[in-house]
Amino acid sequence: MKRLDITQPDFRAQFTSLLAERDSDTASVDAPVAEILAAVRAGGDEALCEFTRRFDRMDVTPAGLRITADEIEAACASVSAELLAALDLAATRIESFHRAQMPESLCYTDAAGVTLGMRWTALDSVGLYVPGGKAAYPSSVLMNAIPAHVAGVRRIAMCVPTPDGVLNPLVLAAARRAGVTEIYRVGGAQAVGAMAYGTATIAPVDRVVGPGNAYVAEAKRQVFGTVGIDSIAGPSEVVVVADGNNDPRAIALDLLAQAEHDPMAQSILITPDAEMAAKVEQAVATELKTLPRAEIARTSWDTHGAIITVRNLDEAADLVNEIAPEHLELMVDAPTPVFDRVRHAGAIFVGRYCPEAIGDYVGGPNHVLPTSRTARFSSGLSVFDFIKRTTFIEAQAESLREIGPAAVSLAEAEGLDAHALSVAVRLAALDRAHDGA
Amino acid sequence: MKRLDITQPDFRAQFTSLLAERDSDTASVDAPVAEILAAVRAGGDEALCEFTRRFDRMDVTPAGLRITADEIEAACASVSAELLAALDLAATRIESFHRAQMPESLCYTDAAGVTLGMRWTALDSVGLYVPGGKAAYPSSVLMNAIPAHVAGVRRIAMCVPTPDGVLNPLVLAAARRAGVTEIYRVGGAQAVGAMAYGTATIAPVDRVVGPGNAYVAEAKRQVFGTVGIDSIAGPSEVVVVADGNNDPRAIALDLLAQAEHDPMAQSILITPDAEMAAKVEQAVATELKTLPRAEIARTSWDTHGAIITVRNLDEAADLVNEIAPEHLELMVDAPTPVFDRVRHAGAIFVGRYCPEAIGDYVGGPNHVLPTSRTARFSSGLSVFDFIKRTTFIEAQAESLREIGPAAVSLAEAEGLDAHALSVAVRLAALDRAHDGA
Repeated sequence: MKRLDITQPDFRAQFTSLLAERDSDTASVDAPVAEILAAVRAGGDEALCEFTRRFDRMDVTPAGLRITADEIEAACASVSAELLAALDLAATRIESFHRAQMPESLCYTDAAGVTLGMRWTALDSVGLYVPGGKAAYPSSVLMNAIPAHVAGVRRIAMCVPTPDGVLNPLVLAAARRAGVTEIYRVGGAQAVGAMAYGTATIAPVDRVVGPGNAYVAEAKRQVFGTVGIDSIAGPSEVVVVADGNNDPRAIALDLLAQAEHDPMAQSILITPDAEMAAKVEQAVATELKTLPRAEIARTSWDTHGAIITVRNLDEAADLVNEIAPEHLELMVDAPTPVFDRVRHAGAIFVGRYCPEAIGDYVGGPNHVLPTSRTARFSSGLSVFDFIKRTTFIEAQAESLREIGPAAVSLAEAEGLDAHALSVAVRLAALDRAHDGA
Repeated sequence: MKRLDITQPDFRAQFTSLLAERDSDTASVDAPVAEILAAVRAGGDEALCEFTRRFDRMDVTPAGLRITADEIEAACASVSAELLAALDLAATRIESFHRAQMPESLCYTDAAGVTLGMRWTALDSVGLYVPGGKAAYPSSVLMNAIPAHVAGVRRIAMCVPTPDGVLNPLVLAAARRAGVTEIYRVGGAQAVGAMAYGTATIAPVDRVVGPGNAYVAEAKRQVFGTVGIDSIAGPSEVVVVADGNNDPRAIALDLLAQAEHDPMAQSILITPDAEMAAKVEQAVATELKTLPRAEIARTSWDTHGAIITVRNLDEAADLVNEIAPEHLELMVDAPTPVFDRVRHAGAIFVGRYCPEAIGDYVGGPNHVLPTSRTARFSSGLSVFDFIKRTTFIEAQAESLREIGPAAVSLAEAEGLDAHALSVAVRLAALDRAHDGA
């Protein structure tokens, strides 16, 4: 963990290095991922089975790739009523927020008599990647599938690795609740390849979304263009902006909630209160003594964690904008000025009663968010990932007379004569009709 | 050119092959592009100058990379008043449409007392790539820069190759009119690399947009993640759906307006009227005799063009959905049923007085559109490319009591104990406060 102080002369250098240290470069898995994708493209289901044998240590035939309705039902039956209720509360809230997010289409007629607008339509099909292994997350299923379902996507295919053949009942229950239409026991780059290119068993989809490890991220990068993808997920991060009026243990747990995800995760506290900084540092150390995932959390905190002291909350907001964090908590008496000053953040959690974990599960907004400073230019998963715009324009004869000549001039200037003629021939016809009238 | 008839038994096979034939694979330029990007990242301005010498046959020093205000002013002064007026009409209409496109932020408080919403904010900086060489398009400058400007992006950098050092006055005039803040005489993959990674002269941007050749497209693919990119542009295409009540020459010119862009462009007429099909085929042949860009247009039309006869307009719309064309013209008596049935198209041009060239210049909607069937999952350039969403949530104490326990259950089920504790510690504090009250 690094202690930075904005009043110190070396602050700028230290802060820059803090931002740069996690710059991930997936170049090292470029080649193996390309091989896996090529193998899936050429070998289809057989390649999927082979990779699944190798990476997930389980025998599977093409006919067995799809998880059956009976398996899903049996899995759901094994989940406690309490957990199913929690899942339902989460799903209901996520649905409600994403429904509010749906945009309106646009259509108007302007002064030139041209009718123009844009229409939103859903994708036909999407593929959801859900990480498996030790951390198969039912919440990820809800967060990926519900926006697609709300957007109106008819086919929602899901791939989830099941190492050693072990199904995760809560993941399957989440998929059923969220409206997933088909589930395959395939993971890694091979799953991304299958959804992008299609196999005999898994029909190709139009867009692949969902978080994953470096192989999955690189695979998404490589299939981009053939299908759409969401932002490439990197390691998670949180910035907590807190004043002195807080329970240090709550802040420590929020920092560790990020840290326990991944040794590459990054948790940063920014505070104008040096005393609170010291108390939180102590509280983190205390919690690490008992936390089940302490090993991961400690590695993350020791390597990438930071506590930054600033003079005031304006400085805090300015640092936030440079970090462009995935998650931002504002645990301060007057959050609004900071909230208004922040331009770049994936999601903001306002107040002392809104830890980031609320957003991971039951808040309503999506927890799939831009990581590693990409909140500078991208957004969390949403209904916008599952719809697209068609613009349209309808010109009447008189409108064409008004705006057509400028198009002819510009087309001629660009040396595109067929473009110019396609307008000119219609203008000439209108002139003839006019003269004849 | 291929003639397809939906009533023939081999139609399905022919149609599938028509869709597949242009599947572009940029794998062949993977390696050279990676080399260029690495060189720019390592060598900065010097690498840019070296590549510019090699590819654009011009000597340039780092200090000369930026096109000066004087050069821009001199260029604008050389453009005719008529062209400047045409440019202004186009810019005004593009501005107006993109302003209408700007979405509203969202904020509401739900039944649980949780305030939640999302806020749209502009990117800080974007880089626009503008193709150069024989076809330096001022209209592309307007279409790329105006949405960024309308979205509120403060820094709009533009790169345009100037082969042999020749500036295109109309491109510079368009950049000035559109609100571009800085212009560099750099092209190709090296320009994309400079904008993504930054050099001493060109500060890095947050997102790179704009069409380009295979090198530019591959470079965008490779820098994706470091910066955002727009959809990777492939060769252009148009589908014209026309009934018998049309001037065959107008349709022929619309088909050739696509074809004259690029030998890889694809123009398809779909009509229920076999007689119109024959007339258009004849009209295309006639126009090709005199069209200045006949060589390109003929290659495109001969290789990728198609005339498809169908039984009715419903069939036409269904084929359109499979093609998911960049541009769609509906030149039929009753366009609405077809318009309503089409789910996948970049932009639709409705009626007999609305050739696609209107949309290229003065319509208002963007002409940077999803090509090569990507309209299945992506959209044209818009203000949405230059803004991003931050979601937010604020829970009061009582809200946390209502939704917090479900978050604890789910976090525990996922084995993320710090997540669970971060909520539980606040719930416990509330309980203590409640008991104390």
